[in-house]
Amino acid sequence: MLRLGYDIEFELPAPVAMVALLNVHPSRVADLRAPDQMCVSPPMMVENFIDSFGNRCSRFVAQKGALRLSNSTLIYDSGIPDPVSPSAREIPPQELPHEALRYLYNSRYCEVDRFSTIALELFGSVAPGWSRVQAVCDWVHSKVTFGYQYARPTKSALDVFTERFGVCRDFQHLAVTMCRALNIPARYATGYLGDIGVPASPDPMDFSAWFEAYLEDRWWTFDARHNKPRLGRVLMATGRDASDVAITTSFGVANLKQFSVVSEQIINEQLAV
Amino acid sequence: MLRLGYDIEFELPAPVAMVALLNVHPSRVADLRAPDQMCVSPPMMVENFIDSFGNRCSRFVAQKGALRLSNSTLIYDSGIPDPVSPSAREIPPQELPHEALRYLYNSRYCEVDRFSTIALELFGSVAPGWSRVQAVCDWVHSKVTFGYQYARPTKSALDVFTERFGVCRDFQHLAVTMCRALNIPARYATGYLGDIGVPASPDPMDFSAWFEAYLEDRWWTFDARHNKPRLGRVLMATGRDASDVAITTSFGVANLKQFSVVSEQIINEQLAV
Amino acid sequence: MLRLGYDIEFELPAPVAMVALLNVHPSRVADLRAPDQMCVSPPMMVENFIDSFGNRCSRFVAQKGALRLSNSTLIYDSGIPDPVSPSAREIPPQELPHEALRYLYNSRYCEVDRFSTIALELFGSVAPGWSRVQAVCDWVHSKVTFGYQYARPTKSALDVFTERFGVCRDFQHLAVTMCRALNIPARYATGYLGDIGVPASPDPMDFSAWFEAYLEDRWWTFDARHNKPRLGRVLMATGRDASDVAITTSFGVANLKQFSVVSEQIINEQLAV
Amino acid sequence: MLRLGYDIEFELPAPVAMVALLNVHPSRVADLRAPDQMCVSPPMMVENFIDSFGNRCSRFVAQKGALRLSNSTLIYDSGIPDPVSPSAREIPPQELPHEALRYLYNSRYCEVDRFSTIALELFGSVAPGWSRVQAVCDWVHSKVTFGYQYARPTKSALDVFTERFGVCRDFQHLAVTMCRALNIPARYATGYLGDIGVPASPDPMDFSAWFEAYLEDRWWTFDARHNKPRLGRVLMATGRDASDVAITTSFGVANLKQFSVVSEQIINEQLAV
Repeated sequence: MLRLGYDIEFELPAPVAMVALLNVHPSRVADLRAPDQMCVSPPMMVENFIDSFGNRCSRFVAQKGALRLSNSTLIYDSGIPDPVSPSAREIPPQELPHEALRYLYNSRYCEVDRFSTIALELFGSVAPGWSRVQAVCDWVHSKVTFGYQYARPTKSALDVFTERFGVCRDFQHLAVTMCRALNIPARYATGYLGDIGVPASPDPMDFSAWFEAYLEDRWWTFDARHNKPRLGRVLMATGRDASDVAITTSFGVANLKQFSVVSEQIINEQLAV
Repeated sequence: MLRLGYDIEFELPAPVAMVALLNVHPSRVADLRAPDQMCVSPPMMVENFIDSFGNRCSRFVAQKGALRLSNSTLIYDSGIPDPVSPSAREIPPQELPHEALRYLYNSRYCEVDRFSTIALELFGSVAPGWSRVQAVCDWVHSKVTFGYQYARPTKSALDVFTERFGVCRDFQHLAVTMCRALNIPARYATGYLGDIGVPASPDPMDFSAWFEAYLEDRWWTFDARHNKPRLGRVLMATGRDASDVAITTSFGVANLKQFSVVSEQIINEQLAV
Repeated sequence: MLRLGYDIEFELPAPVAMVALLNVHPSRVADLRAPDQMCVSPPMMVENFIDSFGNRCSRFVAQKGALRLSNSTLIYDSGIPDPVSPSAREIPPQELPHEALRYLYNSRYCEVDRFSTIALELFGSVAPGWSRVQAVCDWVHSKVTFGYQYARPTKSALDVFTERFGVCRDFQHLAVTMCRALNIPARYATGYLGDIGVPASPDPMDFSAWFEAYLEDRWWTFDARHNKPRLGRVLMATGRDASDVAITTSFGVANLKQFSVVSEQIINEQLAV
Repeated sequence: MLRLGYDIEFELPAPVAMVALLNVHPSRVADLRAPDQMCVSPPMMVENFIDSFGNRCSRFVAQKGALRLSNSTLIYDSGIPDPVSPSAREIPPQELPHEALRYLYNSRYCEVDRFSTIALELFGSVAPGWSRVQAVCDWVHSKVTFGYQYARPTKSALDVFTERFGVCRDFQHLAVTMCRALNIPARYATGYLGDIGVPASPDPMDFSAWFEAYLEDRWWTFDARHNKPRLGRVLMATGRDASDVAITTSFGVANLKQFSVVSEQIINEQLAV
């Protein structure tokens, strides 16, 4: 069982419309063991909808002043790390499901058109399928250095490729772009990822980004940042890239004041108490 | 009545999977007066589907050698130019329909994140609504010079903004990006646009690009390239930008050999014959 | 009188060749009141030369381990702030001295070719000469927000123009580029700039960047970051942009460990002691 | 013996200051067998100077109307192709002459800072010296496709690296950037290059671009576009990149109307007549 939650505070100089992707993904709703309800404070009308990527979104107009978005829920966790299937085949474009095709195309932070030759040069000789996606992850993981100071909102896959520094999202954008350039559908994913079964990170807990690649007959989780199967990943949203699945999108000024995320394993005793 | 059609030939050095957006948009199907059937030669199995943007797409695997895609159909045309509604209001983000929201976000050729201040500086003082979108079109139309030699596949709105040269798609990408940066939903559109009611262009007929902006309660046609209401526009597809609605997307090498488009007004006598 | 100095420490994982621009500019040597001698520790052979821009450079090969570069000197200061000459005329390209021409051209962080129209749109209607350069400074100063977290080595004028955040060097790169696009020679400058006659900055003292524009018959100091005449500016180097006048350029890995700069006014009594 | 010449015509809507680099480089002046005098028509005062890179430049203010720049001269040619010296050593930065250092730095079209890791990945394992520069040329030559339609003024090495199409200058920019990123000084060169000893090109004669790399104790000619030693290369100018050595730089509008270049071998009989 995992306890999930967040506490996010903004200061708004004026009323502002916002869209939040702060719920567990519909594909994981059946695993919830407590309501997954974003609390908005001060209380206001919140409208929920499913976007064109299948994510659960919330919309509201926050008034001037402090705004707090928080949540605390429980979710069943299988205790099984990200599945690994080395025999998963690469599917030629003509056999892909229609809805996977759009994850072959360009997006803001994934300039597939600028990577077609580069990707082929780097990974064209790797056996297709799982091993090729894994080779992309290995490459990105080993070539890019992580650091919070390297984050910036406009950073694209090409920037990551030349600068070789970045945060979670940058690792995934580069890997997603390489996959698409190799005609493997890939989509950006965000969600909870606690330090379960791994050494605790010294960094404050944040939401995490990873990506999914379509192989054989389904989407599989890959993570070019951590590059090893992890426990307790809980998906919130998928899209073409970070622009599609921002945790919050504000149509006006919203100054972030405080931000914390919780994602931790709880044992039954704890739960009972 | 309009006669529409195209004749496109490729030479394929190897079999290649393709996706084509070469049908009239579902919103115009009721106006068709003849079948809108893409002929593929040599004949092969073609699968049709509707993509996530609502466009009618065709998929097939073309064999090595010559490939010809052609069509000829008839469509009812109202004889009314693109509607103009100066009183159409700008809708604040919180009141937009859910499905319009995605047309506020970044896409490959529309780097909204890099234009937020620029757009505000240029158009922030213009009255919101129709007049603001029109001001964007006027600006782009007057500042960018058209020329086929300036086309290139990787050209983004920022490139157009700095270079000031481009083709149809470049004009629309810049205008779409400015609109989105102003929180006005805007989407890229492609289709037929003949020289009806305007001096005949010396250039060979091609498909055209324009864009749609969401104002008041619907999407409206704008065209930063021609910047005046036109007769006989027939929509084929809309998407976030040119990457979403390429006429043909080839997952492999496809060398274009020949390309022609027809879009002409026919009078009843002609039709009868 | 100003006391100038610095103390910079690197850790070198392997021997590395370096070039340093850490001396006062030849144009200010006559004002020195103490030797301006960079101390290199451990001691090693240092070669001095004047580069193609007229700057005094030092070259050496540092051994593996700790490297310390330090200096402390005194320089006569007129006590007069940066000169202001509103009547300084803009010189048409044909009348510029030969050696000023190269400061009209593109450089790495100053993409003049991408700003020619933008600069004209923004400043074409401003009276030429001093007032136009000042208008560029005013614009950059008011539109760009300062912040150390926004520094990155690859940031160009176009990045600053779209992102609107940056450090000293970014402000100057944007202003330099605008000037050049207006056919006004402009060059990037680095040197000492203490908090003399202004409220003390809460930030640790660093070298500063400003720029020089050629008007009438000479180069004049402008500073788009501070945008007001300052006391106690001591020039170290000028070049096309930051790439030409890096404080230190390392041809291999050099990890910065410590960095401090001193630039302070001293009164005679202090000097006597 | 080579006959060299050009005939360039502009139409100027208004008077415009120009700088031309249309003379043989000072290093080849001793080989001239006829005056190398640019004819300017209508006649006007032309000022000559040597720029900071050592190139011979001309400045003048052309009046409104037609402008013609032409020349025809003779130069002694050794009949020896570009020298090849596989044993030429790579010089570590600390042993380079001062004046070679600036050809290690960034310039507008050579973003060395964005290629440091890429260059090392591609060429780090190649033996240093001549073979490494040759490997860079081989790579660029084999990976980039030539085509006049791919020329554009703002195209940088990074654009060439991702797009893989270009003209002469693009090939050289990419190779120059790779060399600099490997700490090998490299500079851009322009001049005459006729079809001597090679199959005649179907393209109209133009000036050509190549580059020079510093190895052992001198600058050597390399050409990533043709990638084989050629006869009859006559240098006109060298600089950091194309921005430094434009054939003509106009400080205002100058519409090119006609352009032809001659560079052909003549045998003594022809010369006598």
